[in-house]
Amino acid sequence: MVMIRTRVFAVGILFLIMINTSIVVSQYDPEGHRGTTENIKEVFEGRCWDYDVTRYLPDLPRVDTGCETLWKLFFKAFSYQPPCAVALENYQPYLEEAAQALPKDKVLFWSSVFSLAHQYGDYGQRYVTLEDTLVGYLANSITWCGQSIEPGYNVTRCPAWDDCPLEAAESFWAGASKTFAQRAKGEVSLMLDGSNPEKPAYRRNSFFGKFELPNLTKDVTRVSVIVSHVLDKPKVEVCGEGSLLLLEADVKERGFSYVCKDDPLVVLHLLCASDPNSRECQLVVNHARGQLNSTKKDTPLLNEVPDFF
Amino acid sequence: MVMIRTRVFAVGILFLIMINTSIVVSQYDPEGHRGTTENIKEVFEGRCWDYDVTRYLPDLPRVDTGCETLWKLFFKAFSYQPPCAVALENYQPYLEEAAQALPKDKVLFWSSVFSLAHQYGDYGQRYVTLEDTLVGYLANSITWCGQSIEPGYNVTRCPAWDDCPLEAAESFWAGASKTFAQRAKGEVSLMLDGSNPEKPAYRRNSFFGKFELPNLTKDVTRVSVIVSHVLDKPKVEVCGEGSLLLLEADVKERGFSYVCKDDPLVVLHLLCASDPNSRECQLVVNHARGQLNSTKKDTPLLNEVPDFF
Repeated sequence: MVMIRTRVFAVGILFLIMINTSIVVSQYDPEGHRGTTENIKEVFEGRCWDYDVTRYLPDLPRVDTGCETLWKLFFKAFSYQPPCAVALENYQPYLEEAAQALPKDKVLFWSSVFSLAHQYGDYGQRYVTLEDTLVGYLANSITWCGQSIEPGYNVTRCPAWDDCPLEAAESFWAGASKTFAQRAKGEVSLMLDGSNPEKPAYRRNSFFGKFELPNLTKDVTRVSVIVSHVLDKPKVEVCGEGSLLLLEADVKERGFSYVCKDDPLVVLHLLCASDPNSRECQLVVNHARGQLNSTKKDTPLLNEVPDFF
Repeated sequence: MVMIRTRVFAVGILFLIMINTSIVVSQYDPEGHRGTTENIKEVFEGRCWDYDVTRYLPDLPRVDTGCETLWKLFFKAFSYQPPCAVALENYQPYLEEAAQALPKDKVLFWSSVFSLAHQYGDYGQRYVTLEDTLVGYLANSITWCGQSIEPGYNVTRCPAWDDCPLEAAESFWAGASKTFAQRAKGEVSLMLDGSNPEKPAYRRNSFFGKFELPNLTKDVTRVSVIVSHVLDKPKVEVCGEGSLLLLEADVKERGFSYVCKDDPLVVLHLLCASDPNSRECQLVVNHARGQLNSTKKDTPLLNEVPDFF
């Protein structure tokens, strides 16, 4: 599924990351400014039918409102309007009708780690991201913006997020992030990138800083932060340092408890699956015993303690 | 995406595995026999629109035939017919219209490892499975069967695959597997389960044995087999043993070269992401150096050779 949601206004470049069925394809266009997605109505309603019957069962509840109604509410929010002046509130009717109850302790926010976060969440099984919910699923990866003349949306060119203060899609993701945060319960998780020398892991002007953290309610108990790092490279920020100290203070100031972990094993193995030969990914068993083959039906060598223990 | 494709006639139980966006939810119903998926036309056509515009770009080519036409061809194959007598050929018009060229060296077949195979394929980025192609994507996870009276399909009960010799959905997956294999080029991969004491990794009566291997053409050079194993358990079959010897013979007899690997590292790390505390998943760096945190901006300890080398 293509994703058009960068979460930093200051950067505002469109990263179009395809990840349906978890394909991740960078579709970043340096010229930006693609027009509204072709056949957007059919894609939106088609995803809606598909979601309703076959997706995220049983992890997320179904929604009562029909697909055609959801499209009308979504389309009404930006169509026949200038592309740079769409208020967050315009999307409110859609956001309310498409909203689902979120499972306790399973909400996952993220900044700058789209693909890894969704793998880590296991697409709703381990954690639920905004893009797993119906609200986000229907809009994920598509482009849209309005114009005052027929057909009410621009098919050739939409502004980039940093071209204007209330860009149509940016307003949508801001409003969607807000309502997603408002519905979170229990322990929430946040995955951040600790390897970018140009950008702190936590930024108060990120989507999380602006729309999610401020909208967490008293139903939330704890914020659990996961800082991920590129393999075999220096770690720019780890838990307890730099912007993560600021995050801890901001979280605690709002009355939530805070915990932070660098590269938990699940995350590390997901990273290693993409780059198994990196030094951090060498497995004890391989080194201790050579390859993993074992003798047929024997108790495998793996059950023995490797030599160097 | 829910999957209704077990590949062994002898078992024939419906495993409904949800894996779009890679959710894997077992929806196996011990009573079986669900009726045709609700709103199947809208789901099918909706997926088609979504796929056409946003999925598997740029890994797989688009299809010229419209979504409504594809649905009509698919529906015509089984509707108004007895559910147990649908010939493979019925689906041929649909299979031809929905077919895509397959990228060389990237086709992945699988038996009994649905979820892992799709993770390993990375949903079309690393390898392409039948379920990544339009042919399989539209039908994956849904249930269908015909009846002679209106509306032409049974909404309350469809037979299981082993209830009859030419069950509607089984015929579809058989025909789809055949045409998928016919279009493969270069090196093809096959992922198998080497940990099931009840079922050999390779079986001549599996979908691969019956519909895929016999339909590979001279455009295929090599069959690369991946045998996966449950972590920390005895391996029932590994490369070069048992049914894998039979597979090697069958592959070579057809003129292809053969290679086999047990649990390549990518696969192992994917397994470990689900069960990071198993013995086979212990990382060298963790053991040698404790946790993975390193000092900010220092060259990480990871770049040093661990002590026991």
